[in-house]
Amino acid sequence: MDKKGNGPDKYAPIGVFDSGVGGLTVAREIMRQIPDEKIIYFGDTARVPYGSKSKETITRYSRQIVRFLRKQNVKAIVVACNTASAYALDEIEKETDIPMIGVVKPGAKVASEATRNGKIGVIGTEGTIASQIYARYIKELKPQVNVIGKACPLFVPLVEEGLLKDPVTDEIAKRYLSELIDIDIDTLILGCTHYPLIRSTVGRVMGERVTLVNPAYETARELKEMLAKENLLNDSSPKLGDNMYQFFVSDTAEKFKRFANSIIKYGILTAKTINIEEY
Amino acid sequence: MDKKGNGPDKYAPIGVFDSGVGGLTVAREIMRQIPDEKIIYFGDTARVPYGSKSKETITRYSRQIVRFLRKQNVKAIVVACNTASAYALDEIEKETDIPMIGVVKPGAKVASEATRNGKIGVIGTEGTIASQIYARYIKELKPQVNVIGKACPLFVPLVEEGLLKDPVTDEIAKRYLSELIDIDIDTLILGCTHYPLIRSTVGRVMGERVTLVNPAYETARELKEMLAKENLLNDSSPKLGDNMYQFFVSDTAEKFKRFANSIIKYGILTAKTINIEEY
Repeated sequence: MDKKGNGPDKYAPIGVFDSGVGGLTVAREIMRQIPDEKIIYFGDTARVPYGSKSKETITRYSRQIVRFLRKQNVKAIVVACNTASAYALDEIEKETDIPMIGVVKPGAKVASEATRNGKIGVIGTEGTIASQIYARYIKELKPQVNVIGKACPLFVPLVEEGLLKDPVTDEIAKRYLSELIDIDIDTLILGCTHYPLIRSTVGRVMGERVTLVNPAYETARELKEMLAKENLLNDSSPKLGDNMYQFFVSDTAEKFKRFANSIIKYGILTAKTINIEEY
Repeated sequence: MDKKGNGPDKYAPIGVFDSGVGGLTVAREIMRQIPDEKIIYFGDTARVPYGSKSKETITRYSRQIVRFLRKQNVKAIVVACNTASAYALDEIEKETDIPMIGVVKPGAKVASEATRNGKIGVIGTEGTIASQIYARYIKELKPQVNVIGKACPLFVPLVEEGLLKDPVTDEIAKRYLSELIDIDIDTLILGCTHYPLIRSTVGRVMGERVTLVNPAYETARELKEMLAKENLLNDSSPKLGDNMYQFFVSDTAEKFKRFANSIIKYGILTAKTINIEEY
């Protein structure tokens, strides 16, 4: 139900946005877990990355994207970007009359349940780590837990360069993660949507005693619960010819499509470029 | 002289812009070579990087920045970004009534003079390399020269992470540069403003027989000539208290100042944040 008492349409698509391609790992989880849902994905490839930018800038960008998605008549919005979830979600949520969900809260919740020794590590972009957003949500649930953040700025370019299994990525992972190993964390949140793609490297460096939490997975799970609760789950099966997944970007679609097709099994045939600054 | 016959003011500052911090290596060369000139620097830190974005997007961004700099009454504009020089300069130059200079032409000129075996390598961002702009300018001067481009997308994040002298940067440099070594180039253009900061690594990997061309240096030299020719050189010495260098950014100034102060010897006390999308 929105503020006017008109419920959004349960057959409408879900809006998912990210600074670029990373949020596709979240879209992929939604496709897997609630395959009957339509998705409109927006990747802000003209202004990527968000990770090193300020709260004000990210909030302004997120507000434009929410306006664009609302014009596409989405029924709910997933902020599939840790930095935008950390910096912009609280403020944007208040201005929006449909349900919104970010990737941070679901990841924080599961991590707080998973830890045994009370030491949780979080890796992410500079923006996400500086915001201390995971610590804030985790401490609301379990105040005594110790949350240790570590920014890993090279992981995104390494993933985008395709070095998913590579000695250089191993070496950089060892450097970034050594202090988390020394502190003896038992749970590690992959606090950036690119990181599930180097999950095996991170897991190997951390060792098998450390539980890895993938917020993309938890977000899709929580989204499904939220839609069910709000009576917004699409209960009709997709018909042949339904346009299930639409992709929009703010810069050329070619590079986006290449990357998208490397991580999503459904063929992405088109991605449309829009001028997001007009929203 | 502008189109209306009014010459710009020779005491006015020079506008210098880049997608972020990289152009500071160009500003640094201008400060060294023509120390009496005032500089207004703009770094588009809210939308950095340009290297992976399209011609249309970069042209739109550059047009906004030129509008901003014109409002600051600059007498000339230096496009201190290889990608913007490659994609936007030709078009923007036509719309602007003060002299403009990019970093590509001066670098191309010196490289075409330096080569003995007619094989020139260019390293840069994906955008700069895909544009083949260096090859175009070099072939205008020396049609028989062979120009081989190689995109090095990890160099910028490695520089910004401070790994200027590091085994990881060595390893990545060896991978990126191996094909240029195999082709036996004798001249290599550092076609991205961040690369002078890892000049020693690149030089060591390439070997001492290869001449490295730094477009930042050549641009400052050519700017000085151009200003002299147009009677726009500032012939008065700066007075005590003159505000010689002003820095503007489109996102938080703190990170910019930190990086700027690490590469420019003059202390950068303030950098002002503006909303570039308003221009």
